[in-house]
Amino acid sequence: MTGAECLLRTLVTGGVEVCFMNPGTSEMHFVAALDRVPEMRGVLCLFEGVCSGAADGYARMLGKPAATLLHLGPGLANGLANFHNARKARSPIVSLVGEHSTRHLAYDAPLTSDIEAFARTVSEQVFRLESAEAMGETAVRVMAVARRYPGRIAHLIVAADYSWSEAGAVGAMAEVERPRVPTVGQLGRGAGSWGILLGGGTTRGKGLALAARLAAAGWRVLIDRNAARVEAGRGRYQPRRMEYFPGPAQAQLAGLTDLVLVEAKAPVSFFGYPDEASYLVPTGCRVHELAGIEEDGTGALEALVASLGLPVASWAAPEAATVPGDGPLTLEAIGQAVAALLAEGAIVSDEMVSSGPPILAALPAAAWFDYLPVTGGSIGQGMPVGVGAAVACPDRKVVVLEGDGSAMYTPQSWWTMAREGLDVVTVIFANRRYRILDIEMRRTGANGFGAQSEAMVDIGRPELDFVQVARGMGVAAVRVETTGEFVQEFGAAMRERGPRVIEAVI
Amino acid sequence: MTGAECLLRTLVTGGVEVCFMNPGTSEMHFVAALDRVPEMRGVLCLFEGVCSGAADGYARMLGKPAATLLHLGPGLANGLANFHNARKARSPIVSLVGEHSTRHLAYDAPLTSDIEAFARTVSEQVFRLESAEAMGETAVRVMAVARRYPGRIAHLIVAADYSWSEAGAVGAMAEVERPRVPTVGQLGRGAGSWGILLGGGTTRGKGLALAARLAAAGWRVLIDRNAARVEAGRGRYQPRRMEYFPGPAQAQLAGLTDLVLVEAKAPVSFFGYPDEASYLVPTGCRVHELAGIEEDGTGALEALVASLGLPVASWAAPEAATVPGDGPLTLEAIGQAVAALLAEGAIVSDEMVSSGPPILAALPAAAWFDYLPVTGGSIGQGMPVGVGAAVACPDRKVVVLEGDGSAMYTPQSWWTMAREGLDVVTVIFANRRYRILDIEMRRTGANGFGAQSEAMVDIGRPELDFVQVARGMGVAAVRVETTGEFVQEFGAAMRERGPRVIEAVI
Repeated sequence: MTGAECLLRTLVTGGVEVCFMNPGTSEMHFVAALDRVPEMRGVLCLFEGVCSGAADGYARMLGKPAATLLHLGPGLANGLANFHNARKARSPIVSLVGEHSTRHLAYDAPLTSDIEAFARTVSEQVFRLESAEAMGETAVRVMAVARRYPGRIAHLIVAADYSWSEAGAVGAMAEVERPRVPTVGQLGRGAGSWGILLGGGTTRGKGLALAARLAAAGWRVLIDRNAARVEAGRGRYQPRRMEYFPGPAQAQLAGLTDLVLVEAKAPVSFFGYPDEASYLVPTGCRVHELAGIEEDGTGALEALVASLGLPVASWAAPEAATVPGDGPLTLEAIGQAVAALLAEGAIVSDEMVSSGPPILAALPAAAWFDYLPVTGGSIGQGMPVGVGAAVACPDRKVVVLEGDGSAMYTPQSWWTMAREGLDVVTVIFANRRYRILDIEMRRTGANGFGAQSEAMVDIGRPELDFVQVARGMGVAAVRVETTGEFVQEFGAAMRERGPRVIEAVI
Repeated sequence: MTGAECLLRTLVTGGVEVCFMNPGTSEMHFVAALDRVPEMRGVLCLFEGVCSGAADGYARMLGKPAATLLHLGPGLANGLANFHNARKARSPIVSLVGEHSTRHLAYDAPLTSDIEAFARTVSEQVFRLESAEAMGETAVRVMAVARRYPGRIAHLIVAADYSWSEAGAVGAMAEVERPRVPTVGQLGRGAGSWGILLGGGTTRGKGLALAARLAAAGWRVLIDRNAARVEAGRGRYQPRRMEYFPGPAQAQLAGLTDLVLVEAKAPVSFFGYPDEASYLVPTGCRVHELAGIEEDGTGALEALVASLGLPVASWAAPEAATVPGDGPLTLEAIGQAVAALLAEGAIVSDEMVSSGPPILAALPAAAWFDYLPVTGGSIGQGMPVGVGAAVACPDRKVVVLEGDGSAMYTPQSWWTMAREGLDVVTVIFANRRYRILDIEMRRTGANGFGAQSEAMVDIGRPELDFVQVARGMGVAAVRVETTGEFVQEFGAAMRERGPRVIEAVI
């Protein structure tokens, strides 16, 4: 058994069953071994950022790692931006990186680079295989790091000769340790105005239902903006997410005397601005950590609710959204249409950037769905995360809501959707600008928009035609310019399976 | 004057006049300052890998740096693969990276990352600005590193507040030091079979003419496979480049007793294989360094030729190529057509991968051109380098010869070609496979191509339609399936200006 085959068999034993990959020469033995280990599903991506983003989306939905397989330092480099997002999402990922054969490394060949240096920028731990015999045992250690709650990116660098040489035994994965449930203490018992910020694993079914009891008892409940997966829609208790800009976020926290963190950090603004705060907690507000990032926040919430004796709570559910009538295509109309038509149990990957607020304001009236936001601010994650979510959950509809500027970072995602027949609809919000930079230009006080600076924000010269780009990659696509057209096309996308793209001109 | 404006003015003073950019919030003051410093040309790219590859192409043609401006760690990450190629090409580049404001850095915001760690993977030196006052002086130091012969990548990390704060004086760039001309010694005087390997600055007009005198005196002249720019075509002395695979490369060097290196390293194979050599110099062959990578190899060649008393030489020039007749479209026919029709003084960016050999065999019969190969093995450089070469040399036709697999890493290049009206024709060699991996699968002994491994090499399911992808980005495009069609379209591309894409189905 070659090292490559041993690696695959060990990964499968440890529950790693999908590999998003873009292989090269040094990974040929790994590719060949796929034929002997059919339990591992290889998913080809035509650009590495699709691989890393897909692994992130997969991990967010299943809570366990997929593997990625990339080609030497430069292949890894192309995956780093979405690995950065995955790191901020605390997604478990087993990142395999091929390397020159050990004998060849002495010669500083063209593709030689410091792969460890590339990997360390996003990795919890970088392993370098030391012999083919150690493959099984090392792969187990890599998976153990990746699966430590809530999840890490662990890299394994595999020299080509360790892939092609005879390996030792297949590794056996130990049970994954469960996160600790912290103690509650006296939280919530003092006078004052209590707030709680939910992150990590608490922003789903059980955690949200527990938080609803706190809300009914007068707590202000908010969701960490970086929570990687949030259950939402009718039937769920839907606290507000923290706002993006400092002022509105500060308003959400104003007046609190005590803020309790559950698998979340104290909120800070996304960017720093000349005359605005970075740290958003009000002066004098006490901050309490109920559960750290690596602890069982849902268990802690359960203990808190029990210690306070809070009963099961109900909450005001929004009315179901209704399909909007025809008219000009606006963000508000798109939001209403998506809310009315969204398939029950859909997975929504959000990279709308400036187009987001009106859509997100409408979505609480939709059928229940899982919401996957951008966590690390790397652009180009929306569609790759959609790829991974669709591979993870083949029976659920995936909806990618995508800005036109951000769509251009990883459009290769569409090819993989077509190749794998993934049930993903991508809605492009085509405003023909880096619209967020219009806002940021003003907020930062830069006050540009003479001819040269305007040209750096205007992406409409020439106009991008996403219908052609998507069709060129094998995905059905259509442009819509009225609300009626959007309703028709989005509705059809909800009823029928398979990848498609809707370019919404707004 | 803001720090951003000071930075731009200092760059311009130092001869840096173009910035390939993909800005974000932390770079807004830089963007706004473009309006006040019109001597700096901003070129917007929709993906960062286009920026870094374009700066590489620009530097190869002009021998001086362009700037790139990227957004924090993840933006830089997306540029790293082509920075890797640029590093191997020894291209000078001033890489500017925006960072959170210094006050904001304490808070580990979503986009916070270790930018220096990202930069160090490809950088000669990473500078972090320490105050707005130091902007001018620091930018001068960055340029001095970048312009040290033959060229380096130097990074400058600029926190947003140093861009928006009041700066000190504009920096003044000192004269760039010329590279040392090494002494010749007794090279070429002993008995034996002498060879010489040309790299760096010696693979153009004067260097080649000098090498022709050595060839006439019985030397075996070869070109370093990693030489970043090679002048070729009729009228030039055209030594062979080192071959890609170890066996053929070893055959090129067989029998030599002495190998002289001029701005080149001793040749090694691109990849290591189970039973083949990595170091390609024959056993017993003495290796002499006439000029190191950082020395003036052309001056050294001049001294060598003078010390040996070699007269001006002529060489057998190939016949001009003739346009092929119609017939099925083959690589040989494309090679002949390109050779016959190539505009005089064209710049050819080569990322053909497996399709390359028949084309490159035909090109010596073309009118003179500059040849820009892949230097570092990062895929996705062909079209970005074409962007940069076209910006550098607006009066010359740029021809990008591009594999279909490799075209998918940075297709966003086409939008910038359209935006800037660049005179670039991209020929896509559409064989619908990662064909090079067919070869490497066999050479590495992996012997795959059961169903799963086959799917990781087959990029034709679904078929990519590059005509639609290119048109979607605003570039005229056409598919050709016969030699007659190729001749017609490539000929038209040579006669008319502006970007276009020809998808050649082979």
